[in-house]
This record gives sequence, structure tokens and C-alpha cells, in this order.
Amino acid sequence: MTNAPAALAENILRDLAAIRAKNPVVLSITNYVVTNTTANALLAIGASPIMSHAADEMAELMAFSGALVINLGTVAPEYLAAMDPAWVAADAAGVPVILDPVGAGASRLRTATPLALLAKNKAFIVRGNASEILTLAGSSGATKGVDSTAKSDDAATCASSLARLQGCAVVVSGEVDIVCAGQDKARVLGGSALMPRVTGLGCTATALCGAFAAVNPDPFEAALGACVVMKVAGEMAAERASGPGTLQLYFYDALYAMGEGDIRQRLKVES
Amino acid sequence: MTNAPAALAENILRDLAAIRAKNPVVLSITNYVVTNTTANALLAIGASPIMSHAADEMAELMAFSGALVINLGTVAPEYLAAMDPAWVAADAAGVPVILDPVGAGASRLRTATPLALLAKNKAFIVRGNASEILTLAGSSGATKGVDSTAKSDDAATCASSLARLQGCAVVVSGEVDIVCAGQDKARVLGGSALMPRVTGLGCTATALCGAFAAVNPDPFEAALGACVVMKVAGEMAAERASGPGTLQLYFYDALYAMGEGDIRQRLKVES
Amino acid sequence: MTNAPAALAENILRDLAAIRAKNPVVLSITNYVVTNTTANALLAIGASPIMSHAADEMAELMAFSGALVINLGTVAPEYLAAMDPAWVAADAAGVPVILDPVGAGASRLRTATPLALLAKNKAFIVRGNASEILTLAGSSGATKGVDSTAKSDDAATCASSLARLQGCAVVVSGEVDIVCAGQDKARVLGGSALMPRVTGLGCTATALCGAFAAVNPDPFEAALGACVVMKVAGEMAAERASGPGTLQLYFYDALYAMGEGDIRQRLKVES
Repeated sequence: MTNAPAALAENILRDLAAIRAKNPVVLSITNYVVTNTTANALLAIGASPIMSHAADEMAELMAFSGALVINLGTVAPEYLAAMDPAWVAADAAGVPVILDPVGAGASRLRTATPLALLAKNKAFIVRGNASEILTLAGSSGATKGVDSTAKSDDAATCASSLARLQGCAVVVSGEVDIVCAGQDKARVLGGSALMPRVTGLGCTATALCGAFAAVNPDPFEAALGACVVMKVAGEMAAERASGPGTLQLYFYDALYAMGEGDIRQRLKVES
Repeated sequence: MTNAPAALAENILRDLAAIRAKNPVVLSITNYVVTNTTANALLAIGASPIMSHAADEMAELMAFSGALVINLGTVAPEYLAAMDPAWVAADAAGVPVILDPVGAGASRLRTATPLALLAKNKAFIVRGNASEILTLAGSSGATKGVDSTAKSDDAATCASSLARLQGCAVVVSGEVDIVCAGQDKARVLGGSALMPRVTGLGCTATALCGAFAAVNPDPFEAALGACVVMKVAGEMAAERASGPGTLQLYFYDALYAMGEGDIRQRLKVES
Repeated sequence: MTNAPAALAENILRDLAAIRAKNPVVLSITNYVVTNTTANALLAIGASPIMSHAADEMAELMAFSGALVINLGTVAPEYLAAMDPAWVAADAAGVPVILDPVGAGASRLRTATPLALLAKNKAFIVRGNASEILTLAGSSGATKGVDSTAKSDDAATCASSLARLQGCAVVVSGEVDIVCAGQDKARVLGGSALMPRVTGLGCTATALCGAFAAVNPDPFEAALGACVVMKVAGEMAAERASGPGTLQLYFYDALYAMGEGDIRQRLKVES
């Protein structure tokens, strides 16, 4: 991170304005727990979501998509079948791909699937929690279900290696988010302790990576923008919430209402 | 529309009272983004939702269903397989069918599927946005993902043609809703600019068409009732909401609480 | 029920504290209407949800799961395929299984599926509405879609028989919840009339049975704890709600915030 906070805020505001002006389509093959919530987050920030796992239409949908999100939360065969064809179509169309290896480490299927996809295709951003990123990097990522048992900073070195190996940005989400790509690295602070009590906010971060990737060709900047917006919206929502239920709703309201002052004043990024 | 507004309001209030008194079952084969939200909207207005795409049980479920909703938002094979058997069973049982051609125009699959269903079966109501209705009517409905790039009024002529050709009511949802059937046509105003920022409110309109179809044998009146209730609830919700997150919740509360005065005072229908 | 209310409250508080301290993984094969809402309820109470219907990973996931929930709301083949392998794996691993026979009685498939699973495997808790439990017990459980047309108390005798036959606890949810196992029986009162207007709160009760089963080896106590927490949270939420939309959100907030006084003061259990 060589950007001063003020310059970083301006970059993010530029990308946010571009999302709101262009309403880029974010195509998601995602899990059935978060189809509704990630679609709502994308709409709230100004993007145009489409959710599908119909392999037959992937190439056509890619023609007007600004990003493809592949989220491995549901690893049933009917979901998996569309992922590789979609990624191939995205590469052919120059559409950036965001991968979320949900639960990597929790089962052989959840570990092998993202590794096989990454061995064959090039990601723009990979986003996961510490356990998932440790698993992808070949470390023994202790996991318990789909929740991480490691801290983000524990996965920072592995994340940097993975990012260089894959030539993409890697995000480790947690109490502190780690973003790295090439020689760049940033730690994003803020948010709220209530956020892990709402299902799928990690998946929402992945979806927002898609929105930023649709307007910014730099994977590090796109990933950083999404992480900052998540933390700022979470902080804004937590100030009004009385628990995880209301947090989720106010989170969408915050994404929708987020103004220049909110980002400039709440941005907390360390190199 | 030959009804004066006051008479129209009484018709809608009569149907709303019937839904609340009879709790008709609305059976939906719908997409995985809106299963929860459309079930909640149906419960809030007084109907009894059942969501299924198990072809094996369609004929049995039809025995106690007041309407069948077929929503093409998820066009994966396991969802598509149940649609034609369900429609055939609905016809045999005299159950009205509401079709929502989500994303028609966005891919060959999303265009061909509703056309094939309509070529074989008779709809009671078809509801979509302008791009979708233009596509079904054979016009080049410019679409971007699942969101329309055309205005409702641009699709009014095509909607009337489609309605006469299919012998059903057609709804074009948008900032203004167009409802047409035979020689009848109405424009429904109201609602809130926040509504397109909540995923699946179009699908919710389709679901509510099912609730009204279960208590009113006239497709034009049923479709018009659903559109008016959507606009009134959206307007009521928007007065309390601080963004799309809270809008969605207050929308359910408005459907539940909607009283006679709300409809009489907020109804905005033009012929 | 031989426990005095005060002793019962202490039991439930002990289990609730254990859930919040240990964050047990509750693995759910559940329907696509409630994946998001039941995951949020589990997170709000302190458990760690994982939703999957991938048969291949069931045995591995069982290694760190505290309970398995099998919910029959979606009876499509791709969901059903994972259920028996998961249950077998749960038995092998000593993981308690909670069965929710959604819509039993509404179709042959919805009646035969839970009966076939129960004929082969041993449940820890079975939870349903009166129509569903009457159907499983071989009585003609009048059902209309997935909503019950019978009262809980009408199913009390059948529930006791089913509980003894299966050697498990049985919960009949409704305006009054009935919990029975062996010679034990309790009626749980409270909650709110708004609760049936929110989709999937029955499924949420089933999910919470999973959370309690993960920390309490007695099926009657686990089921009773889940029912009491549902009624208390529903009552707390209803005091703030203006309809079913806001009720659902405040319900999660109540699960999260529920303190000792809330349970001690609101507990309403009769033998």
C-alpha cells in the first residue's frame, strides 16, 4: 500500500460512482443460502445481479456481464456443473472472475473443487476466510464447518504466496481484512463484531468484489474497494442495529446511502 | 378500464378480503433467489404458499391449490423439469397459471422456455418487465441481465397483442405498471423508486397475481388487484424506509396491515 | 414434566450458555425457502450452521458436527439423495438427527419419505405441525399445503405414540407447542400470533432443536429448550414489530440478545 488514505478514498469513491452510474451486471453462480442477500447487496450498491447455474446460458450471459462470481458454498453436482464452463466463457469474453472457496478444508470436495478450478483457470480475485485461504495455499487450515478457526493475519503470508502463484488478488476476510496482490498488501479495519453473526456477509464481500472488478481493471484496487465498503457499511449499520437481524437490513440501507463523507471519515486501511 | 376508481377500489377490497378469509394455497415453482421473499409476501397478504419443483407431487398438490405460479428465474434442468407437468396438472384441475418469464431475451434458454410453455399451455396471467414482454411478443426486447432497459409504455402495444393472442392478461411491471386483457387496459401508478433496488419484487408481483387469481376468475381484475396492492404497499413501506433493506421488511408489514383506507386513498389507476 | 418452572429455566439457561460457548456446528439438509433464515437463527443463538445436500461430503462433515437436521421442505430428487447417506453417517458418528417432515400428508412423496427414513434410521427429535405429526402417526392428518389444519392438542396422543414407537422426542408446533418423549410431556405457551405469518419459523424451531441437541443428550430436554426459546424470542420480537416483516428481523435480534431474565420471566410451560 503506497496510497495515502486520502488518495485511496478518492479511488474508491471513483469506483463506487462508476458502479452507480453504469450498473454493471454481476453474474453469480452462488450458494442457495445467499442468493437473495447477495443480490440485494449488489442492487443496493448499484450493480445489476443475475444468479444462474444453468451451464447452457453461461456464454450468452457473459456477453453483457461485467464480472463473474463463482461461490462454492453449495457443492452439489447440479451447481458444480456450470462452474468450469462459465469460467471458460468468462476468460473468452475478458470477464474477470472472483472465486469464493466456501468451506475449503471442511471436506475433500470443498478443498479439491477450488484447487481444480484454479489449476485450470485464472482468477481475478480469490476471497475467503483464513482457514479457506490457508487450505488453498497448502497449509493445514484448521476449519470448523464454514467458519474459520484462524485469524486473518495468520494467513497473510500464505495469501501473498497464493496471490503471486495465481497472479491474482487474494482477500482474507476476518476481524481485519487482508488484501494482497504482487508486492501490494493492505489491512482493512473497521466493521462490527456483529457481522459474523449474519450469514453470508463473507459471500457478500465476494459479490462486491465482483461489482468493483466490473469497473476497475486492477485486482488489488477492486478487492480493496470491496473490503473498505464492507467495513464502512457494517460500521454504519451497527450504529443503528439492535442485533444481527436488524444489522443485515441496515447494512443494505448503508450500501445504498453511503456517501463521500462516510468513506473519507470511516476508512481505516494500514499497509 | 371502464371502472371508476371508487368501484375499482371496492373490487380490490373484496378480493383482498377473500384472500384473507380463505387463505388460498399458491403453489410456486420459482427461482432460488425469491423462494423466501415471495413466500413471506404471500403469507403477509393472507395466502398459503407452497414452494416445490418435485414433478412427482404436482398433480396431488394441485388438488388443493388455488393458483400455480411458474417463475423462470432459475432455468437449471432440475427446475425446468417440473414446469410442464405442473401446468398440465393445473389445466386438468382448473387451476389458473401465472407465468413469469424472468430474463426472457437474456439468453436463448430464457427466451425459448416461456415461448415453448405458452405454445402448449394456456396462461391466466403473464407478468414481466418491458424487455421480457417485448421478447415474448417477438419484438427485440433489449435486455441487460434480468433488468429491463425499456419503459413499460414502450411495451404496451406488444402486451395487448400478446394478451389477445394467448387469451390471458398481461402485466408489464415498471415505474408504471401496464395491465391488459382483451380490450381492457389500465396503467397503475404509485409505488416507490426504491422498489427496483430490492431483489425479486417483480417476482413478488407475480406471486400476488397468484393470490388474486385464486379468488377472482377474471384475469384482468386479478392482475390489476395484484399491481395495485404492490404499488400501495411499496408506497406505504417507502414512507418508513431508510433504504432498500428496510423497504423490504416494511413492505411485508404493509401487505399485512393494508386496510380499506390505504387502498381507497392511494389507488392511482388510469385507463 | 416433573421440573418446576424455576428448575426448567435453569436447565435451558445452562444449555443456551453451552451453545454460546461452544458454537456447535449444526449441519442441515434443508429446503431452499429457509436456508438463509435458519442459518441466521443458528448464528444468532450462537451455533455454527452449515447447509449442504452434497452426499459426497456428508461423512466428513459429520466429524465436526454437533447435530444433523434433515428438513423435507424441498423433496426434489437432488435434495433427497443426500438424506439417507447423511443419516447413516450421523449414526456412525454418534451425531443426533432432527427430522422435520414438512408437508407430510400433502402428497404421497411427502408422506412416504419421512416414513421411509424413520423405518430405517433412529431420530433424536421429530418436529412438525399437527397435520404432519398426525400423518406420521398413521392418522388422517388433514393438511392444506404445508400449513396445518389441526390444533396441536389434537395431535398430542399421536405424538406420544410416535415418540414411544421411535424412541425419540416429538414436537408438535402450533399456537401451543407439545413436546413429548417416553412418559414426559409438556405444553409450551407464549409466542405471538404473527409468527405463522413468517415463512419457515417452524423450520427455525427444527434448526434450534439441532442447536440444543448438540449440547444436551436428552432429547426431551433439548426439544423443550428449543421450543421455549422460540416462544420467548417470538414474544420479545412481537413487542417491537409492526408486522411479519419486522417480526422476522427482531426475532433474530431477540435470539441474540436473550438473557437470563427473559427466559425466567417469560417461560410458560405446563405439564
